[in-house]
Amino acid sequence: MSYKMIVPDLGEDTLSRLRTAVPEMTFLVAQNKEEALTLAPEVDAIYTFCTPELLAAAPNLKWVQALSAGVERYPFDELEKRGIIFTNASGVYGAHLADHLMAFILAFSRQLPVLFQAQQAHDWKSRKTYPPGDLRGQTLLIDGLGGTGQDLAQRAKGFDMRVIATRRHLDRPKPDTVEAVYAHDQLRNVLPEADWVAVCVPLTDETRDRYHNAEFALMKNTAYITNIARGKIINTDALMNALDNKQIAGAGLDVTDPEPLPTDHPLWDYENVIITPHASGHSPNADENILNLICENAQRFVKGKPLKNQVHLNLRY
Amino acid sequence: MSYKMIVPDLGEDTLSRLRTAVPEMTFLVAQNKEEALTLAPEVDAIYTFCTPELLAAAPNLKWVQALSAGVERYPFDELEKRGIIFTNASGVYGAHLADHLMAFILAFSRQLPVLFQAQQAHDWKSRKTYPPGDLRGQTLLIDGLGGTGQDLAQRAKGFDMRVIATRRHLDRPKPDTVEAVYAHDQLRNVLPEADWVAVCVPLTDETRDRYHNAEFALMKNTAYITNIARGKIINTDALMNALDNKQIAGAGLDVTDPEPLPTDHPLWDYENVIITPHASGHSPNADENILNLICENAQRFVKGKPLKNQVHLNLRY
Repeated sequence: MSYKMIVPDLGEDTLSRLRTAVPEMTFLVAQNKEEALTLAPEVDAIYTFCTPELLAAAPNLKWVQALSAGVERYPFDELEKRGIIFTNASGVYGAHLADHLMAFILAFSRQLPVLFQAQQAHDWKSRKTYPPGDLRGQTLLIDGLGGTGQDLAQRAKGFDMRVIATRRHLDRPKPDTVEAVYAHDQLRNVLPEADWVAVCVPLTDETRDRYHNAEFALMKNTAYITNIARGKIINTDALMNALDNKQIAGAGLDVTDPEPLPTDHPLWDYENVIITPHASGHSPNADENILNLICENAQRFVKGKPLKNQVHLNLRY
Repeated sequence: MSYKMIVPDLGEDTLSRLRTAVPEMTFLVAQNKEEALTLAPEVDAIYTFCTPELLAAAPNLKWVQALSAGVERYPFDELEKRGIIFTNASGVYGAHLADHLMAFILAFSRQLPVLFQAQQAHDWKSRKTYPPGDLRGQTLLIDGLGGTGQDLAQRAKGFDMRVIATRRHLDRPKPDTVEAVYAHDQLRNVLPEADWVAVCVPLTDETRDRYHNAEFALMKNTAYITNIARGKIINTDALMNALDNKQIAGAGLDVTDPEPLPTDHPLWDYENVIITPHASGHSPNADENILNLICENAQRFVKGKPLKNQVHLNLRY
């Protein structure tokens, strides 16, 4: 039996590896959405390019592979109605995302934003008192204990931090690196304990504006929030208000709302905000990781086996 | 029996805590070196202020406590000749030093120097290819597996890095976090393996210029060196030469030679060098930690017990 899958132009080397790994699958290259649309009628599977128009044009589609871990833009209703298998790239970026969160936390705890500016000014100055202090013994709240959250917990434990977390799947085993796990909807109860908050939940209708005025009011005024998930999980106006009123100490943001952050947005200039341009998933290894995932899923697909990284269509992540 | 110890002006609260903790010891406050010198003839112990002149003026001196972990400036010959107990602040700064080294490593691996500048320019740009990549699986060479080195190894292990180390005391047990430990003089043999080098050796006559042209030539051109120990362990001209010739990828320096780094020094402006002003030991906890150490050592001293953190007078650290 032979199958067809649309893929973006991954380069000759990568395409050749895919073709060798999964000879039962014909990989059709689309340079853009329009080309994907013209190829849609004949395919069984697609990697990225999944719009409502494409779904409508692809009557035989059985599998959609997303390039990203966050999939809030995908047409869930239609995927669910047609029973299309939907897989994301969760885990592919996990280690980098956790590294990036620890980079935010350490940058703040070691004063790097202040000291970078001092270096630019050739100024050998030294500030002895800085609130965050030793990470040892401080409490990190990981909001969303999925793959990234667990990678982060492992890293934080190496610093002898106290790690607590929220998760939706309370039935899953608690990693040894985490002291206590709370239900997803217990966020307000645990926020007051946190010296550091790491936002690792997916964006859904439920998590949009999960951090708003009430949440910032509950945080320690010495606490920092960090976000590598999606910008809209934090209400930007509420965040700026909390920073202006010194309700929290600062924020490390790899994602923003709006995104990209417009040039004239006031968030750029907060001294206690580090902004990185959705760079937490970047790594020379990411391409290799996702290629391995696609190879494996394509091999499973042609053999009729369950795919890895299936998105919960009802939960929308 | 009553003893006398010179201390700097630690503030009323701290002095009061010391006096309560060690009633057998009279703590004499010196505002500066000159005052310390006039108090010297009558004292048994001194915290910091230890110059050759002071030693000569203090015939009854039996114990010197240093404020720092690095003690290369102390008058070893005289201390050794007179059998004066010499204790340093090793361990007091360990956790912060290890945090600082990881801050350097993560800042480079997550491109923070580039992205800080992008933030200053309000520029949402994104560089997808950056050499360091995932820390997972990369090799960290810890040159000097003392307290700081072991704290660093624990942190690096949380990132699934491969950790190797040099140490002088090969007879001591190898921590589980370290894959292999090599002799202090095997540096050149292990440098070619390292993606990251963390300098954690004390400054002695032997370690001065430990990193010079030959060492940089042995490093990977994708490797970074980080230093929180003492500036003179790295030869600055050789470092700049290695950076200019792209023999190494960059450097994170909390200590420099000369130090403070003069305003017009070319090292300030290297894009792939992060300079922090000997700030790695700074922490709101450091004062508390060293106070606890002094309390404990003073209690041991008045009871004639062995002190903590004794410096090896023969090894000079």
